[in-house]
Amino acid sequence: MSFRARHLLGIDHLKPDEIVSLLDLAEEYAALNRRTVKHSDALAGMTQINMFFENSTRTQASFELAGKRLGADVMNMAVAQSSVKKGETLIDTALTLNAMQPDLLVVRHPHSGAVNLLAEKVNCAVINAGDGRHEHPTQALLDALTIRRAKGRLQRLTIAICGDIAHSRVARSNLILLGKMENRIRLIGPATLMPAGVADMGVELYEDMREGLRGADVVMMLRLQKERMDGGFIPSEREYFHRFGLDAEKLALAAPDAIVMHPGPMNRGVEIDGTLADDINRSVIQDQVEMGVAVRMAALDLLARNLRASRGRTAVGEP
Amino acid sequence: MSFRARHLLGIDHLKPDEIVSLLDLAEEYAALNRRTVKHSDALAGMTQINMFFENSTRTQASFELAGKRLGADVMNMAVAQSSVKKGETLIDTALTLNAMQPDLLVVRHPHSGAVNLLAEKVNCAVINAGDGRHEHPTQALLDALTIRRAKGRLQRLTIAICGDIAHSRVARSNLILLGKMENRIRLIGPATLMPAGVADMGVELYEDMREGLRGADVVMMLRLQKERMDGGFIPSEREYFHRFGLDAEKLALAAPDAIVMHPGPMNRGVEIDGTLADDINRSVIQDQVEMGVAVRMAALDLLARNLRASRGRTAVGEP
Amino acid sequence: MSFRARHLLGIDHLKPDEIVSLLDLAEEYAALNRRTVKHSDALAGMTQINMFFENSTRTQASFELAGKRLGADVMNMAVAQSSVKKGETLIDTALTLNAMQPDLLVVRHPHSGAVNLLAEKVNCAVINAGDGRHEHPTQALLDALTIRRAKGRLQRLTIAICGDIAHSRVARSNLILLGKMENRIRLIGPATLMPAGVADMGVELYEDMREGLRGADVVMMLRLQKERMDGGFIPSEREYFHRFGLDAEKLALAAPDAIVMHPGPMNRGVEIDGTLADDINRSVIQDQVEMGVAVRMAALDLLARNLRASRGRTAVGEP
Repeated sequence: MSFRARHLLGIDHLKPDEIVSLLDLAEEYAALNRRTVKHSDALAGMTQINMFFENSTRTQASFELAGKRLGADVMNMAVAQSSVKKGETLIDTALTLNAMQPDLLVVRHPHSGAVNLLAEKVNCAVINAGDGRHEHPTQALLDALTIRRAKGRLQRLTIAICGDIAHSRVARSNLILLGKMENRIRLIGPATLMPAGVADMGVELYEDMREGLRGADVVMMLRLQKERMDGGFIPSEREYFHRFGLDAEKLALAAPDAIVMHPGPMNRGVEIDGTLADDINRSVIQDQVEMGVAVRMAALDLLARNLRASRGRTAVGEP
Repeated sequence: MSFRARHLLGIDHLKPDEIVSLLDLAEEYAALNRRTVKHSDALAGMTQINMFFENSTRTQASFELAGKRLGADVMNMAVAQSSVKKGETLIDTALTLNAMQPDLLVVRHPHSGAVNLLAEKVNCAVINAGDGRHEHPTQALLDALTIRRAKGRLQRLTIAICGDIAHSRVARSNLILLGKMENRIRLIGPATLMPAGVADMGVELYEDMREGLRGADVVMMLRLQKERMDGGFIPSEREYFHRFGLDAEKLALAAPDAIVMHPGPMNRGVEIDGTLADDINRSVIQDQVEMGVAVRMAALDLLARNLRASRGRTAVGEP
Repeated sequence: MSFRARHLLGIDHLKPDEIVSLLDLAEEYAALNRRTVKHSDALAGMTQINMFFENSTRTQASFELAGKRLGADVMNMAVAQSSVKKGETLIDTALTLNAMQPDLLVVRHPHSGAVNLLAEKVNCAVINAGDGRHEHPTQALLDALTIRRAKGRLQRLTIAICGDIAHSRVARSNLILLGKMENRIRLIGPATLMPAGVADMGVELYEDMREGLRGADVVMMLRLQKERMDGGFIPSEREYFHRFGLDAEKLALAAPDAIVMHPGPMNRGVEIDGTLADDINRSVIQDQVEMGVAVRMAALDLLARNLRASRGRTAVGEP
């Protein structure tokens, strides 16, 4: 197994062979999850703490199930509701949790870089479950696995990412991962929703969605994240759907076997037509959720292996 | 074992022999729960998700303990607080959860019929933990087990159900179950709190509580659910207690060995006198809670068996 | 093992040899928690319910991890948010939970004495996780273990407890425990924050922090609990820090190897200087958190043993 990282903080620090070995292991867990007895002992006796400074029912649920299916003792800390408000206390909270000796810490935080900062303070393995506009590595990995299963490969594909790129850590992590894998990437959206400096990243930019979709193998829609928009351009939902919402008519411009993706939760009728989202011949949105649990199981398992190795003993034979 | 249902959505679709076999299995779990090591492997390696769109600390706790004692990986989704507000997103939430591959889904929802709708969209077994004014099958089953243990039988009893019948899914599920078992059922309450069409259901109606209680073997009090009353007759608590609240004096009209039941949480001094509720010679209210865990263990176990059978393989021998 | 208590409601009813045997067992769990596989079967098949009528993320987390690492089925009841408001319903809630047959109940409650009251109503072992201004026994035990590890003994030490003594159950439980162990105890704080009758408790009182710290082996700072102060003296934070906040200059008056403790969460810059709190040569604040999990594992384990003995059978050999 060639996955060498101590933490999973972003896609940026992963090498292509690390990504491939994580996806390969995730395939095994995807098969396990299809069985009635969906349990492994990979994390037996280890402690996983989910620490969400920002609410996310679905991502937290995915990590919770992943840990439990691997046999870990899993604890959720609802820090979003607790008294954590100032930046300094992030460290106090981290040190307190660290003293409770978790082996795996899954962290979501509204500020970019907060999870990296926290990882420097603790003895355990840390997974970034989304930090500000920075990274959301397990989302990019589950998207990659979904693409590989649907397309049979993760290279030489034309992938269109559409919508609110600027506010999206999902887009950022996907851009990095898909770029490492030598795909052709197109970003589609209004100029006001494009991140600064993106022109230098080797991607193609489109303001006209019809142009951008032409011949695409994968169409990845993003959630319009109004809650992240601090001032600036806010389109009406109706106008947004007209220009940048995916429907059957626009999708007809993509490759005939193009797949449709969305990280959820969807704004039906805003960035995507509801009927298209439910069309199992084109949409792989449910597969993304399914692969989410499998990818998180693989990530937890690989980090736990590296943790054991760094502690110089095996889990089972430990004296 | 003659329990054949795929889901447990209501009492309506259960045959008397299915009810009896579920209660028989629940008796075994009631015995297990009295031991210090109260654990079985019936759901080992399976995933149970509790999805409560309406808060209910006690019912959720009962299902959570039931699943954990059977060895399942149990996850609570606090959907009441999350962003689920529109009818359409119930389905999105259901599809997302389904993609995480639970084996058992326990659902409470404020709208009648919502759980049935959801059950059509998922691949797992669904238990209705209460939907609007429709059904609450595990409550009726735990009431039935409590009655059977106290009375030695579940047939040929005179059972008085008193209070706010119209707003009560508990009353509705009990009516159906006790009717199937050939009991004589009396409904007691003000005409304004009687459901429409109840006169055709083969039950006796009473507005005078003293008349209705005469000779009853079982007195089942209901919670006055002010939160469900949208307009119409709202009695003062004092007047309500005077006319329809159970106290020792009114209970004296029932059979000498009549038992007192309440689904909880109680409004002491409104629908029931507090001293009577605590009288362990008459009240079986704590037994109802105890049987609640046992009945839910039996329901989860039986549905899991049918799920395994429908998937064409056994849990343990699975390849 | 000489720990004979049925419940752990306070330090008051523990004998010194009971305290020592609990701390000895906690040492073993502290060693276990340093391993990657940190799991025991001491509570396998038993049910632990955490019932927090007052929010406390860190204490609840500590008990949750303790129970899970011992193999219990652990359930959290968020009663703080539920509809429990009146004193009488504490008993209803307790009876309902009791009917679900927990083996161990961990309770925090805002009213002094509420946990003792509750313990009289249930069949299981109860641990007080803090009740009003009364007791917080596991906090005193984890402080004792931290002191014993740092100082090599728990006797004949000069221990200064500083700050808001009157509102602190932590101070109260520590006073009792450290007194039983024949230490010299000094209480430092403004007279308005001293409890009534403390002059008769065999402790030394200081209003001048510099005097009180002189030669102390242990400096135990308390959280300024503004939320508990109903009227009376409320100092400004700045003035409070000047007079009663611990910093390097004041600490220089204590013994050269004096250790600094705080039960957390800290108000940095109010009762303690942030830099000092983080100084691992003096501060044992993180050790306190670590010992917290170990002490709670020991308490749960010992109570479970006594519960099994009182039920007249062993956990494993049970028929």
